Amino acid sequence: MAKLQSCVIALAKHMKNLSILSSRRRYKVLFANSAVQCIGNLRKIGDLHVLIDASVYNIYKKELKVLTNARSTYIVETNEKQKTLKGVENFVLHLLNNNVKKNHTLIVIGGGIAQDMGAFTASVLFRGIQWIFLPTTLLSMADSCIGSKSSINVQKYKNQIGTFYPPLTIFVCTEFLKTLPKTEVINGFGEIIKHAIIRGGTEGKHLLKEIEQYRRSASGMKKIIYSSLVIKKRIIEQDEFDTSQRRLLNYGHTFGHALEGYTKNIIPHGIAVMIGMDIANYISYSRRLLNEKSYRYLHELLFRYIPDIPCPIKSVAEYFSYLHRDKKTFGSALHAVLAKDVGNIQVIPIQLDEALKKNIQDYVSSWI
Amino acid sequence: MAKLQSCVIALAKHMKNLSILSSRRRYKVLFANSAVQCIGNLRKIGDLHVLIDASVYNIYKKELKVLTNARSTYIVETNEKQKTLKGVENFVLHLLNNNVKKNHTLIVIGGGIAQDMGAFTASVLFRGIQWIFLPTTLLSMADSCIGSKSSINVQKYKNQIGTFYPPLTIFVCTEFLKTLPKTEVINGFGEIIKHAIIRGGTEGKHLLKEIEQYRRSASGMKKIIYSSLVIKKRIIEQDEFDTSQRRLLNYGHTFGHALEGYTKNIIPHGIAVMIGMDIANYISYSRRLLNEKSYRYLHELLFRYIPDIPCPIKSVAEYFSYLHRDKKTFGSALHAVLAKDVGNIQVIPIQLDEALKKNIQDYVSSWI
Repeated sequence: MAKLQSCVIALAKHMKNLSILSSRRRYKVLFANSAVQCIGNLRKIGDLHVLIDASVYNIYKKELKVLTNARSTYIVETNEKQKTLKGVENFVLHLLNNNVKKNHTLIVIGGGIAQDMGAFTASVLFRGIQWIFLPTTLLSMADSCIGSKSSINVQKYKNQIGTFYPPLTIFVCTEFLKTLPKTEVINGFGEIIKHAIIRGGTEGKHLLKEIEQYRRSASGMKKIIYSSLVIKKRIIEQDEFDTSQRRLLNYGHTFGHALEGYTKNIIPHGIAVMIGMDIANYISYSRRLLNEKSYRYLHELLFRYIPDIPCPIKSVAEYFSYLHRDKKTFGSALHAVLAKDVGNIQVIPIQLDEALKKNIQDYVSSWI
Repeated sequence: MAKLQSCVIALAKHMKNLSILSSRRRYKVLFANSAVQCIGNLRKIGDLHVLIDASVYNIYKKELKVLTNARSTYIVETNEKQKTLKGVENFVLHLLNNNVKKNHTLIVIGGGIAQDMGAFTASVLFRGIQWIFLPTTLLSMADSCIGSKSSINVQKYKNQIGTFYPPLTIFVCTEFLKTLPKTEVINGFGEIIKHAIIRGGTEGKHLLKEIEQYRRSASGMKKIIYSSLVIKKRIIEQDEFDTSQRRLLNYGHTFGHALEGYTKNIIPHGIAVMIGMDIANYISYSRRLLNEKSYRYLHELLFRYIPDIPCPIKSVAEYFSYLHRDKKTFGSALHAVLAKDVGNIQVIPIQLDEALKKNIQDYVSSWI
């Protein structure tokens, strides 16, 4: 542990970094220059167990060779079936069979699913072992890597259990983005743009500019990711356990999740969230919570990133039934996250009634 | 939630109570006068799901009738098989099938196993729902109910996963002790005496006197439980996550757990812990860490509660192999908790070597 911490402190001096406060501990996001540098640093730690996304493993086999000193390596096909309580049990059994001890460190390399499995396992094994995260997708680098949350499925029920348990350190290495499928890149931008809109003001505008300017270079992506995390950091440090301000991060998600369910996940998460924000904004605008100028501005901003597709909602009634299933529905009210302006986002309960159905019908009709 | 808190505040005014600080929240232990009073108060809360030990349910069916407003009731045979990740999954599925929501409350009624299942489930379902605990065994009233810990088995591996997640409130009702099997009562006294020895001084002596004086009356038991919890409270508030001082609470457990394993759990936990403390003291005494007077005092104190049985260790070599399996063994050193005096207990690494084997052989030979 002492060795691990001194290793992290030494690295922090050489890398751009960010420090996040959580109830459990303060933890760091370090920006590495290359996958080799990033992975190479880990071998110094000792007593490692590695959980790695199979597709990342297949691409970075050569770089990962330095980790042959790990006590065990678990290569996982990252799909929803692995992200279950049963999948976690299999992983815990693998670790116990490999004599994992309370003072060992788990290294998680991959995107959101690897993060969920790794974070949840690290939080409950021996009531908590230390873990280090190397996010390999844009979404996990620019959003999910901080905030301590994990989500695990219980059989058919998605994301119903989880914990709040941050890693000791996160190493962000944008080199991994070079091999990331395009859909996965868009997934990340959905959440980054969401952060920019939630924050608004100079900082929000600055992030939007950075996206325009830098999104095609790996070193530029570092700036975008850093700015995105700084906005999220401020929110989660004030409300780690998701009881007030943190709920704003669900902006676009209520309507987005319903869209994912309705389209059987054909629409990727990032695009669903962007369309979700556009639907939320349309509802705000229709109810005179958001003025026309701001609505138009946000609509144009989002459609710079939403691909040119026909409206994915064909049956409003069916889409509506997915809204009903939302976790944040209490009785007949939906805890919607709506924009009153750029930088002024609020949780507003809205009834799942005919008026809402009409809003969505109008939205669908307005899609060009 | 607001209703629940005002209900708890109202009750706290009328009952002797204790307040425990944890990283997650401050929580209360309230002492109720009767099972009817205790259970009756719960019905006011609303949106309840109940997890109850089957043997308690069978005895207190009548009193529990007031809880017919609960949204669901899960009656569980409390054995090690239920206390697994699989058992937790079944319970979570039961709750989800009964439309549990994030703002509902879980009521757990039973001893340690019900507490483990309930606490773990409450800590992970929707990343944490509120729960209330009604301990029904002496051990859970006087010891495990505070400190936030849960332990769950993963297939054949015992107590390998868990969380730190306190209930909102604990209602201690000593009326439940009237129907508790004698072995279970001894289990509780093992841990209470452990608290008295760890604390030492006036407070430790006072608790030992209370045990002598009051242990045969339900109202007297309240005093014993209160004093026991006050000692534990001080330790866990300083070291909730078990990284330093809290380890002292393992006094008697390293040698006790090995005895439980070696005797295939024929020796109940409380007696195993008391013999475990006696073995630890004998080792300290043999190594001149504990003086003869204190050793004799503790030996006589413990044997006032350890029943008159022949020495349970028949093969020192076999008992020794169980010590090797201890979770807190790193390499060849055992992190033993040893007494240097009453009120002066320390974690001292001792080698699993021939010298230790000889100490235990001598201990066995000295058993009268």
